[in-house]
Amino acid sequence: MNYDELYSNIIRKRSFLCIGLDSDPDQFPDHIKVLDNSIFEFNKAIIDATAQYVVAYKPNLAFYEAEGVSGWRQLAQTVEYIRKKDSSIFIIADAKRGDIGNTAKMYAKAFFEKMDFDAVTLAPYMGKDSIEPFLQYNGKWSIILALTSNSSATDFEMEQLNSGVPMYRKVIESSIRWGSRDNIMFVVGATRPEKLAEIRKYCPDHLFLVPGVGTQGGSVAEVARYGMNSSCGLLVNVSRKIIFAGQNKDFASVAGHKARQISLEMSSFLKVLR
Amino acid sequence: MNYDELYSNIIRKRSFLCIGLDSDPDQFPDHIKVLDNSIFEFNKAIIDATAQYVVAYKPNLAFYEAEGVSGWRQLAQTVEYIRKKDSSIFIIADAKRGDIGNTAKMYAKAFFEKMDFDAVTLAPYMGKDSIEPFLQYNGKWSIILALTSNSSATDFEMEQLNSGVPMYRKVIESSIRWGSRDNIMFVVGATRPEKLAEIRKYCPDHLFLVPGVGTQGGSVAEVARYGMNSSCGLLVNVSRKIIFAGQNKDFASVAGHKARQISLEMSSFLKVLR
Repeated sequence: MNYDELYSNIIRKRSFLCIGLDSDPDQFPDHIKVLDNSIFEFNKAIIDATAQYVVAYKPNLAFYEAEGVSGWRQLAQTVEYIRKKDSSIFIIADAKRGDIGNTAKMYAKAFFEKMDFDAVTLAPYMGKDSIEPFLQYNGKWSIILALTSNSSATDFEMEQLNSGVPMYRKVIESSIRWGSRDNIMFVVGATRPEKLAEIRKYCPDHLFLVPGVGTQGGSVAEVARYGMNSSCGLLVNVSRKIIFAGQNKDFASVAGHKARQISLEMSSFLKVLR
Repeated sequence: MNYDELYSNIIRKRSFLCIGLDSDPDQFPDHIKVLDNSIFEFNKAIIDATAQYVVAYKPNLAFYEAEGVSGWRQLAQTVEYIRKKDSSIFIIADAKRGDIGNTAKMYAKAFFEKMDFDAVTLAPYMGKDSIEPFLQYNGKWSIILALTSNSSATDFEMEQLNSGVPMYRKVIESSIRWGSRDNIMFVVGATRPEKLAEIRKYCPDHLFLVPGVGTQGGSVAEVARYGMNSSCGLLVNVSRKIIFAGQNKDFASVAGHKARQISLEMSSFLKVLR
């Protein structure tokens, strides 16, 4: 999928919502907890109730790996299920991988060949070698961590460099040259909305994947205000605030209601476009 | 396992060798390639032939994930097999994970509870939040990327900060305070040996996990010369140069021979200790 295809999905669905499938079994409703394949069953119910309101899903790998082999199997089932449900939906492996070239190549194989993800999140610390192998796949995306939503983003990401810019800006300005707006996007957290505006100035055309709305405290309105460009330019991720909105038998419809509510808010910001 | 226990294994075995299990099926000898469980069978043969010469093994997760569910199962089997073979051996998940606190907690569960790894490699980009959950496990280790062995370590790791130090030094000097020499070590590549000496000055007591010897060009002698401290302070990793040293039916004994050769070289540097 390229940017234009993703953008037409955004316009068609009036939504730039990505739902994070941080599917922690400890948080599941009791009637799901007891099932053998509980992660997949939970995801399936959430996907059925929310697919019409989203343009992307983002399974967070940690929650699957924590269940070992069975978790990895249910991750694969989830990706297949999303593809079958709505082939226009963009699927992100939130994996935050990053390793030397020959290893990165194997991670790319894992996410783009063994499983059918559209994109993978990547940590930039090790530099270009660790990103390039992912960019060899036509129609697949590298989503590079720039400025994340957590409080310790101040530790290293926001460190000022000798050259006068913070590290996250150096990451964006370097890596933007390794690919195009059709295969690179950046993670920019919603918890520092004023930074979104700053980053838009030197990164006008690329998509941002924006975590931090919901449980972490960011708001859709602020993200849209500071981060939107003329082709939307945003995928806003919400995880726990949607998938764990309900705790009972009706958890999926509660999640669907919450997703609808957020997508309606998003649609109001999309009115100005196209 | 704490530092003293690991150090007594180093002294007893006269070796600070870690073998990287970068078990890429495309590189296996033909008689292994055809097996159902080829990764595990390959690893088992390598482990049987080399266990007496090593203090650590380091499966590189990418090579297992690239095989999907089956790869993840064979990773778990490999960890169990090493434990059974020689319970003194330190097992490192080369995973280079790094995510916000609630996600990092799940990765820690994956590697320290679901599987019985002693340590996991971690990318520091997102700061303290992303490391802390791993440090809650008694006897388990966080191995933090500082200065890696790949050429694009120059992109961000070696960037000079406003404060006058390069990023990798800032990473070491910050994160050293988050734990102790019993649960934090650093990745410092063998491909820039002069940097090992520099880093030893401000990080005298911690273990370094040193990749880059072998295929990437670093040498044991230089690493020992520049990186050793009075408690050895080194785990030197060799992957492809050992596990793919032989390409025929006798690949395991060729690997064993290569591992013995490297450990003998290491033992000469250990003579000065204890």
